[in-house]
Amino acid sequence: MRAVVLDGPGAVSVQDVPDAALLGADSAVVRVDATAICGSDLHLYHGQGGAPGTRLGHEFVGTVEEVGPGVHTVSRGDRVLVSGVIGCGRCPDCLARDPGVCRNNGLAVFGTGTALPGGQAEAVSVPGIDVFALPVPESLTTEQAVLLTDILPTGFLGAQRAHIRPGSTVVVIGAGPVGVLAAQCAQLFGPARVLVVDKVPDRLARVERLGAEPVDASAGDTVGRVQELTGGRGAESVIEAVGADQTVSDAIMCAAPGGTVSVVGVNLGMAFPFPMALALMRRLTFRVTLASIPGTWDSLVPLIASGRLHPEDVFTHRLPLSAAADAYRIFDSRTDGVLKVLLDPAG
Amino acid sequence: MRAVVLDGPGAVSVQDVPDAALLGADSAVVRVDATAICGSDLHLYHGQGGAPGTRLGHEFVGTVEEVGPGVHTVSRGDRVLVSGVIGCGRCPDCLARDPGVCRNNGLAVFGTGTALPGGQAEAVSVPGIDVFALPVPESLTTEQAVLLTDILPTGFLGAQRAHIRPGSTVVVIGAGPVGVLAAQCAQLFGPARVLVVDKVPDRLARVERLGAEPVDASAGDTVGRVQELTGGRGAESVIEAVGADQTVSDAIMCAAPGGTVSVVGVNLGMAFPFPMALALMRRLTFRVTLASIPGTWDSLVPLIASGRLHPEDVFTHRLPLSAAADAYRIFDSRTDGVLKVLLDPAG
Amino acid sequence: MRAVVLDGPGAVSVQDVPDAALLGADSAVVRVDATAICGSDLHLYHGQGGAPGTRLGHEFVGTVEEVGPGVHTVSRGDRVLVSGVIGCGRCPDCLARDPGVCRNNGLAVFGTGTALPGGQAEAVSVPGIDVFALPVPESLTTEQAVLLTDILPTGFLGAQRAHIRPGSTVVVIGAGPVGVLAAQCAQLFGPARVLVVDKVPDRLARVERLGAEPVDASAGDTVGRVQELTGGRGAESVIEAVGADQTVSDAIMCAAPGGTVSVVGVNLGMAFPFPMALALMRRLTFRVTLASIPGTWDSLVPLIASGRLHPEDVFTHRLPLSAAADAYRIFDSRTDGVLKVLLDPAG
Amino acid sequence: MRAVVLDGPGAVSVQDVPDAALLGADSAVVRVDATAICGSDLHLYHGQGGAPGTRLGHEFVGTVEEVGPGVHTVSRGDRVLVSGVIGCGRCPDCLARDPGVCRNNGLAVFGTGTALPGGQAEAVSVPGIDVFALPVPESLTTEQAVLLTDILPTGFLGAQRAHIRPGSTVVVIGAGPVGVLAAQCAQLFGPARVLVVDKVPDRLARVERLGAEPVDASAGDTVGRVQELTGGRGAESVIEAVGADQTVSDAIMCAAPGGTVSVVGVNLGMAFPFPMALALMRRLTFRVTLASIPGTWDSLVPLIASGRLHPEDVFTHRLPLSAAADAYRIFDSRTDGVLKVLLDPAG
Repeated sequence: MRAVVLDGPGAVSVQDVPDAALLGADSAVVRVDATAICGSDLHLYHGQGGAPGTRLGHEFVGTVEEVGPGVHTVSRGDRVLVSGVIGCGRCPDCLARDPGVCRNNGLAVFGTGTALPGGQAEAVSVPGIDVFALPVPESLTTEQAVLLTDILPTGFLGAQRAHIRPGSTVVVIGAGPVGVLAAQCAQLFGPARVLVVDKVPDRLARVERLGAEPVDASAGDTVGRVQELTGGRGAESVIEAVGADQTVSDAIMCAAPGGTVSVVGVNLGMAFPFPMALALMRRLTFRVTLASIPGTWDSLVPLIASGRLHPEDVFTHRLPLSAAADAYRIFDSRTDGVLKVLLDPAG
Repeated sequence: MRAVVLDGPGAVSVQDVPDAALLGADSAVVRVDATAICGSDLHLYHGQGGAPGTRLGHEFVGTVEEVGPGVHTVSRGDRVLVSGVIGCGRCPDCLARDPGVCRNNGLAVFGTGTALPGGQAEAVSVPGIDVFALPVPESLTTEQAVLLTDILPTGFLGAQRAHIRPGSTVVVIGAGPVGVLAAQCAQLFGPARVLVVDKVPDRLARVERLGAEPVDASAGDTVGRVQELTGGRGAESVIEAVGADQTVSDAIMCAAPGGTVSVVGVNLGMAFPFPMALALMRRLTFRVTLASIPGTWDSLVPLIASGRLHPEDVFTHRLPLSAAADAYRIFDSRTDGVLKVLLDPAG
Repeated sequence: MRAVVLDGPGAVSVQDVPDAALLGADSAVVRVDATAICGSDLHLYHGQGGAPGTRLGHEFVGTVEEVGPGVHTVSRGDRVLVSGVIGCGRCPDCLARDPGVCRNNGLAVFGTGTALPGGQAEAVSVPGIDVFALPVPESLTTEQAVLLTDILPTGFLGAQRAHIRPGSTVVVIGAGPVGVLAAQCAQLFGPARVLVVDKVPDRLARVERLGAEPVDASAGDTVGRVQELTGGRGAESVIEAVGADQTVSDAIMCAAPGGTVSVVGVNLGMAFPFPMALALMRRLTFRVTLASIPGTWDSLVPLIASGRLHPEDVFTHRLPLSAAADAYRIFDSRTDGVLKVLLDPAG
Repeated sequence: MRAVVLDGPGAVSVQDVPDAALLGADSAVVRVDATAICGSDLHLYHGQGGAPGTRLGHEFVGTVEEVGPGVHTVSRGDRVLVSGVIGCGRCPDCLARDPGVCRNNGLAVFGTGTALPGGQAEAVSVPGIDVFALPVPESLTTEQAVLLTDILPTGFLGAQRAHIRPGSTVVVIGAGPVGVLAAQCAQLFGPARVLVVDKVPDRLARVERLGAEPVDASAGDTVGRVQELTGGRGAESVIEAVGADQTVSDAIMCAAPGGTVSVVGVNLGMAFPFPMALALMRRLTFRVTLASIPGTWDSLVPLIASGRLHPEDVFTHRLPLSAAADAYRIFDSRTDGVLKVLLDPAG
């Protein structure tokens, strides 16, 4: 079968790889119907964290092709969406749909190493499918379902962990796909205002259409702009959705006294310069989140079904899997109005 | 000065009464600019709880005319909105803007007895004005400000205390003014669906315009309709905004397992027949709320200012104070499309 | 095998019944090592809710004798404690250990009808054993383990749902076994004071040894005594652990403004006279709880293991299963210093 | 009058200074009955943050000597304890006893600069005394009262903000006075275990007497020891009570997946090397707290009065104010079994 493989920094290709096969009694093989490229795939694309040969991708939906003998809740032919982040699948935390705190330290992400090959492929082997997959509800489109495998849950948890209170002001740093969805999800917690900071004009325009206030940071003064727009007070809740040291630092500086900074941007540093004195005087809470995907589905599926969330708006480009190299290049460039790219394994 | 006085069941009149005067060092006299009739005024109008001679009304905004020597935060000429519910004004709970748990048992409501004459008048004496009044922000209209003195805070607390979680289903029983505002406020907590139950066609139509799902209960089967619309499960959160025994009972029966019933309708009974066995098997939480108004202003003012809440939509009728008898009659009749009536003391 | 069977009001006997057998692929047969009588068994014993022939008991620990082919986490020979309350075992809520809100409405209690024969027997059939049983940790004694099958979780959830805040005052109504454990668990939430109300002298003495303040209600004036001991304010949190109409009513009257009443006593009425006006003026929260047992084990096992909780103190009588009729009689009489009775199926 | 003055790094002296005087209508002069040295005073003593001439100290209780005309709740002769941290005294947050988020950015600490001279003196000028002081309840000793002015509230908030859940494991880093009180307060939230890390033998022995588990970090391997004692998992809640970069780093490394690190140690750096990748994979929450003192009194006073908290155990040395230079030297040395030093202005 074909799969997207990391060749090295800045280079991916579509290669023939061995067919996906069962990994154990509780696993399944899923034939992929649609898969997306995530901002965190770009970390590997940029040479941070993935060895050449890594099969990429953790956002996919597909059709169950084969199940192990211990699988109870899905059958051949079922359409499923699969959590991009999984755990051991057997401990109480995994059963409670929270693999992020898996008691057996089984936390793993598809497509980030050799143990769990990626979902940008024609088929994927999925362990623990009973707990890490959800039959796609009829009320959801395939594109909506793909977004439930990682970035919508990530945006949702980023907003949920930001302690947003009714009437408060939220700042979202970054209007990339996660930032846009975090801004949508922030509205679920009743803020009076949601400010979204970015530098790219079409991203700022999209934010405005969503009902948030765009803040143009192209002049470099994110903190000053936010202070100005909040009467010098800052925002009670700040969601960081980029992951760079500078944006994490900006996020902290934008927080009002007593505020919370919730980071969902991926920053893999081990020595980010954290301003302790400022955090002390402002009594800040700082949270970093790798999303536990399945635990969010009970909230998010009804929100999409009832039309309150429209996550599919983030897709700007749809390409065949065979064009993965182009797709990565376009996504990485942030040009051409690109926000999120969907790949079709049929092509 | 003129004031609306309860003459007896079904009868109010505008009478000349002594001018409002200071009540102590921390009090003020407020000349009323606008005042509204509340559903709970109808309890007195129906002969429940008020002696003839009671000067009615607890929803008013006005202009400060005179202040006592211990008043610090408002001055003559300031436009203020005043909490319809007050406390001693000096205990830590009152200072923290929560007179509902006043440590000196000072909880009192304007216009419900002789101690604190009502606000449907040309002027009102306001004790503890530093903690129970708010200068009307420029970003608010007078009609919006009136709604901050009772029913918007009541609807907000009713929603807040209903434990609404993102993606859940909310039922609001009653599309009267409090119910409409509770339904608006419920949206602040991220539900997937808000169902609003009523029997009056124009009220159901208004609910639909608000983006909620109207549920026609004119056939009498509220519980059956809600079960049908929720797949037999009921709603995780139910807000009761009528106060009748039947509607409180319906609210409880509509709750899903683990759910919360939040009552903001005024029911003054002491032996409502509560279904303990049902509450046990469904693990229910049942909450009754007399709103602590001032504690909600920090949340609600920015929500109105940013346009997220539009409480003023509830006003359907505006009459001069001199027409109070007509105003009560119309409001009580629920005809003529009436939802909420504003009185103008200048007329 | 032998089992305790309800013969009619006030009468139980030990009878020969068919051997326990597997109920399905996810079930197991558990040979009982110890089983206890619960206060809620007395409802059936008093003729409320159980047909003659009902096999009683829902508190038991035992040794796995046989497992179905779909069982993964326990094996023959394992010692397990089993939740007295179960659900479908397959829905997300059951997997998350919360059968109380089972999405398939599978909520059921062992020993309350014919579908799920009771645990006061030599062996029991247990459906969904992977999610409703816990291998008994080595750090726990058998007697401690029995208490994890119902009444310690019930007392814990009763306390947890009472919104106890550090420094507050808690009242527990009833010093029976659930009340005693609720009082122990209340201490986990940092109250300054825990008052426990009962009429039986040896129960009051036990409460005092636990570090709580005994309140003698034998004169009938529970509310007056609590008001006196709290400076006329009442308690922020009240836990009702009896279930009678009078004690539920007392619990509500003892609550301070803004307070919470958490009922864990079993009251099967459908028209308890609830004081709406009082609840309104005091802004009360009223919660009724049938405990979801398995969800508490993660909290309670370490608390017993570290010695912070000593639930086994409640056992006052240990009898052979063959003496079940005597055991019920003694437990029902509340004489002889009885608090909780353990039955040994070996005898 | 006499006051303790900072002369330079490692040097303080008792000097004659102008008598304390009223600062405004809402202020008072308080004659000091007892005052203590705080660990954060040592930051100034070590040359971090205070100019020579600074009058030190923010922990004091005393007797009101003179009040401004706008003071309502205390009178000449009242014994009061005063919050070491204050705000503007007039905004809603200050009135709600939370000066830490003072809307007028009025956050200030006694004894850290020239604007608000310190409490290690014969008398102190106290602004906003109505909201920042509490008449000392009869049920409290003077030594208990002194601890309510800073470090007990700090330890309490550190524990409260650590998200301690019943049955969980807590690690406290540092068995200095704040650490000891944080460990006492951690018990209010129901943990199964509280581990306290320090290197000083008599501090470890004290911790054990308190019912916590001492962890000797003198070999330098705090993280390894904690991992070993928690089965490799770490602790769900970690309270850092030292403030050094190394101990803050240790605290983060000791946190279990999903855990919270609550820092109450004072670290005034602006570039602490924060491990973002670890925080991401473990989904950590990191909180830094400068305590809002008055908001804790409602919780803490009843806990001391009922005997549940014994904060006064931290005092190991009592000296006259005239011996302040010795007192600082002893406190700084951590020898002689010193934990906390009380100064008597009468001597």
